Order: sequence, then structure tokens, then C-alpha cells
Amino acid sequence: MITTDICIIGAGPVGLFAVFEAGLLKMRCHLIDALPQVGGQLSEIYPQKPIYDIPGYPSINAQDLVDNLMEQIEPFHPTFTLGERVENLEKQDDGSYIITTNDGTSVHCQVVVIAGGLGCFEPRKPEIENLEHFEGKGVAYMVKNPEQLRDRRVVLAGGGDSALDWTVFLANVAKEVTLVHRGDTFRGAPDSAEKVFDLAREGKVNLILQSNITSISGNGHLQEVNITAKDKTVRTLEADNLIPLFGLTPKLGPIADWGLNIDKAAIAVDTTDYSTNVERIYAIGDINTYPGKLKLILCGFHEAALMCQSAFRYVYPNQKLSFKYTTVNGVPTF
Amino acid sequence: MITTDICIIGAGPVGLFAVFEAGLLKMRCHLIDALPQVGGQLSEIYPQKPIYDIPGYPSINAQDLVDNLMEQIEPFHPTFTLGERVENLEKQDDGSYIITTNDGTSVHCQVVVIAGGLGCFEPRKPEIENLEHFEGKGVAYMVKNPEQLRDRRVVLAGGGDSALDWTVFLANVAKEVTLVHRGDTFRGAPDSAEKVFDLAREGKVNLILQSNITSISGNGHLQEVNITAKDKTVRTLEADNLIPLFGLTPKLGPIADWGLNIDKAAIAVDTTDYSTNVERIYAIGDINTYPGKLKLILCGFHEAALMCQSAFRYVYPNQKLSFKYTTVNGVPTF
Repeated sequence: MITTDICIIGAGPVGLFAVFEAGLLKMRCHLIDALPQVGGQLSEIYPQKPIYDIPGYPSINAQDLVDNLMEQIEPFHPTFTLGERVENLEKQDDGSYIITTNDGTSVHCQVVVIAGGLGCFEPRKPEIENLEHFEGKGVAYMVKNPEQLRDRRVVLAGGGDSALDWTVFLANVAKEVTLVHRGDTFRGAPDSAEKVFDLAREGKVNLILQSNITSISGNGHLQEVNITAKDKTVRTLEADNLIPLFGLTPKLGPIADWGLNIDKAAIAVDTTDYSTNVERIYAIGDINTYPGKLKLILCGFHEAALMCQSAFRYVYPNQKLSFKYTTVNGVPTF
Repeated sequence: MITTDICIIGAGPVGLFAVFEAGLLKMRCHLIDALPQVGGQLSEIYPQKPIYDIPGYPSINAQDLVDNLMEQIEPFHPTFTLGERVENLEKQDDGSYIITTNDGTSVHCQVVVIAGGLGCFEPRKPEIENLEHFEGKGVAYMVKNPEQLRDRRVVLAGGGDSALDWTVFLANVAKEVTLVHRGDTFRGAPDSAEKVFDLAREGKVNLILQSNITSISGNGHLQEVNITAKDKTVRTLEADNLIPLFGLTPKLGPIADWGLNIDKAAIAVDTTDYSTNVERIYAIGDINTYPGKLKLILCGFHEAALMCQSAFRYVYPNQKLSFKYTTVNGVPTF
């Protein structure tokens, strides 16, 4: 049995930074992540992509941010269980929790912090014949590495910001980009939609409106996409990749059974301390929601800081918390 | 008359980062600061000090953080009025504002963001005979650069965290450190108080309890500090520097007359968007307060991001705001 003060579910950037804020208050952390490495989406989905909105970094490579966060929390010796999923949560008589993973790892902790990011969600899959058969063989639900699409014939489907943004982005990368959308207006940002219409006029992308992809085929790998228009006409496109972008649905797994208030595929929290409705369980980063919520890494950092001030009462019930600036005291280690 | 979308009062790290978040939404910013340079406290008070709690930076020099933020906002061409104080705020019929400084600079804007940090506050001065006479001549109310105290005889006064933390810090820097406190227990963190008591036992600092500094003297520069104990005995210490650390009181100046809700020397805001009670006026960073508030730069960054989403409605009243990730789109310039 692993014993710690705070068990953090999710080792993405926000979960990692929570270790730092906890460490300043002398609270130890253990992190569990289903992925085999730390960094969450940053390491898994776009390690080589630059991020532009981390305050103080005009640009930073996603993996470098993860590496820097790991260095920043090193003084506090966090421990990790990677490549395992949280399966069970059991409240103890004294209020503490025991968390168990699918591999049988047990963690006893005073406080649980869910920092599961989008890892707790899965892509919404459209109804397309044979779709799942070609997953990993040309079909994917997110663009992990745009370079893998260089000089390929790519079909995107959807009408929101992701579909629009990737259409614009891939216009300069892929050999051929086709965007299929069932409507003729877009839900996404007006100026993105405008860019897509412009690119279509210039012949740089194919825009197929009022249509749905109905089936796909190929010999071992995706080769053809069949598109049915509202007027029932069907056309077939040759394609190497199909990327349906219809948003995400929650895949909270066992967390869904913990009695947490779920609001639109996210965990509702109180902005005073990012606590959930269940005592000693907090949610920070992309997995939580509250009025004004933005799914930005920098917001998760703030949430982690306020969470730790509140979690302190459960870890040190008899101590008065006093707030300290690292600029005066430096970073105490343990 | 300068015309802009958002006028930011205060060009510290939080005010600067607000330019970035505003820029992503195509809103232009003008910043006003009473200091002659950008960076706020970072540049003014401790430019050469490392900061340890900026997420993603295990350590960064305060001035480097300012420089990086300036580089990060460069694509959005913010404009600045430095070395001037905001004097007047005048609401226009269309809801917009005209801000005027003490030097007569006028700025017309749709939204006002107060990011004044501690610049809007001034140190609380104890009643000590001749105190103001020696300001800048040995008396200061904050430690701007600890190196200036190296090998000096320093007297600190106060019983809170600042007094304790600086006593511990300066024990290794100054030639002689004396802490004078009127009580015999401290309001600051118990472990800081313990450290001070330890240092006193080891003879590394002088601790004078149940006493007040009553007068000071010197020939052009501070030379002597007179301390009166509760039992009325008076002793005189030779000293090069006296630093009373009794916290801050609001010096909001004309901002105090704008009808803003002030709560304990800070501006009360709504955490949904960090708006004040006055329409189109927001407050972010150390100057605001709300349940759970922490005076951390990283929290101000979050506040800036949420504020911009809300301010957008006043700058582009007829446009729907759509949220975008810079990782997909990069940073658009203008």
C-alpha cells in the first residue's frame, strides 16, 4: 500500500504543478496516470508542438514544458503509478481514501485530486459504416502529430472549431484536404469559417456541405470515403486519412460512480478552492467546470494553487496554514 | 487623445499578460503605470531575485520574467504611458471611459482593467519620532534588494510573516540583525517564528520582544535606534538600516472614488470574470480580492484570461466570442 497526503489522478501539466504547490505546504503527492508517461496530452498528443500561451514563454515546446515542470517539482519527490487506471475509491472511517487501480496498486491518501484533463473523455464517434474497423488504419479522432499527415489525402468531418481550425492548418501540410459537414453554416468561430470558405474558393481545400460520410472502405488501410448528400447523391473520395471531429463525451469510468456533480461532461467545482461536492475530493484542470471556466493550462495552475490551500486542512488538521512567498523563502525541500 | 480597447492600469506581470490574452481576441491595450518602467514590483522591488513559483520555471529572475512577457505580447503592439498616475475617470454616454493622468494624458477606452498590484497600497508606518525624516537615509518599508544590506547593521520591526521571513533571510546577509516586536508571540507562521527563536538562541539575530522603537536619530543618515520596553526601560542600538514591516494600507488614490467595492484594502471582484461592481471595470492581480484569493502572479495570469473573455462583449458588442487554442492556431498578430 502506497501512503501519501494527496493522490492526484492525472499526471498532465496541471497535476504535475499541483505537486509543487502541495510541496510548498509540506504535503506529499502520489500521481496515477493511465498513460505510460507523465505530461498528459502534452506528451501524448502533441509533444513536438509549440505552446504560445504559457505566461512568460513566448513559445515553448509541449514536451519541454513537461520536462520543466518535472524539474520544478523534483524537490518534493512525487511518486508515480503510470500506465494504470483508477478503478476504485473507498472512503475510510477517518475520512481518508484508499484508491485502487486496475493493476491492484493501492494508495492511501487524505485528499483526492482529479486532474484527469481530457483523458477522462473520449471522442464522439459519428455513425459511419466500418468506422471502428479502420481505427489506427487511417481513422483517428484527433490530430496527434500533423506531420504524419504531410502529403496525405485527408478528409475531416465536423462543423465546430476543431474541424475548422484543422482544415485551415492542414491546408498547408496535407496533399489534399476535404472538409465534410452536414450543414452549410458552421458552429465554430465566424472568422475561422470565413478562412475555410476562402481556402475553398482558392481551391486549396475541398468543402462538401450538406453531406454526411456514410461508409468507408479499404484493403487493410483506409482508401475510400463515401459521402451522401442531403439530396441522396453519393460520391466517393480517395483518402488516406479520415478524422471525424465531433467533440468529446465523458468517459469518467469509475469516477462517474463517486457521486460527483457532473455538468456537461465535466466535474462541477467551487471556485473558492476547486473542491467538488464530495468532501476531500477536488477537481482541477480541463476536467472541471465552473462559471467562466476556460480550458487553459494556465487556469489549471491557478486552480492547483487554491486547491492546495484548502486541502491542507485535511492533511494537517491541527495546523494553521500561513501563506508564504517563495521569493522570500526559496523552495523548501523534503 | 489615445484611443484603445482596453486601458490597463498597472504594467506589472499580470497587466502585461492581460495584453496577450486580449490580443488573442483582437483587443488592443494601452497600459498606464506610475513607475518609469514596466514590470511593476518585479522590476522595481526585486529585479535580481529569483522567483520559484512561476509554473514551468523552476527558477526565473524577476526581470527575465518581465522581459519574456514583453516578448510574448510584442505581436500585439501594446502602447504605454509610464511615469504617470491615473487621476481621473470619466464615463461617456456610450458607456466607454476617458482616463486622464496627472500629466494630462487622456486615454479613451471601452474597458478599464485595474492591475495595480501593491502599487495601489502604501506601507503602514509605525509612530516613531523622526521616522519620515530618515526615509531613504536608512529607513525603508520594504527590502528592495537584500544585497544593499550586506554587512550592515539592520533593525527590523514587526510581528508578521514579512518581519519573520526577512529576519531569517538577512541573518546570513547583514552584519547584525535585530528584530523588535511589541509582543512576545508572533502572528506569522509558527515554523518561521521557531526559526527566528532558534537564530536568537544561536546568537545569530537579536530578538527584542515586548518593546517598541520610539525614536531614531543620526547625522544625515540613520545611526541610532531607541527602543522602549514595556517596563519603560530604554535602550539605544547603533544601526545603519531600519525596516518597519507593518503591512500595507490602501492608497487607491482617485480609484477609491470610482464607487468600487473595497474589501480589506482590495477591490472585490466576481470570480466568473474578475469584474468589479462597476460595469466595464475589472480588477486583476494582487489588487483584487475574492473568496480563496492568493496573491500569486500565476493567479493573476488566470484572472487576466477570464477577464478578457468577458471584456470582449464591450469591445465587440455584435460579435460572438469563440474560444481558441493557440496551439492549433498560433498567435495571430495585428
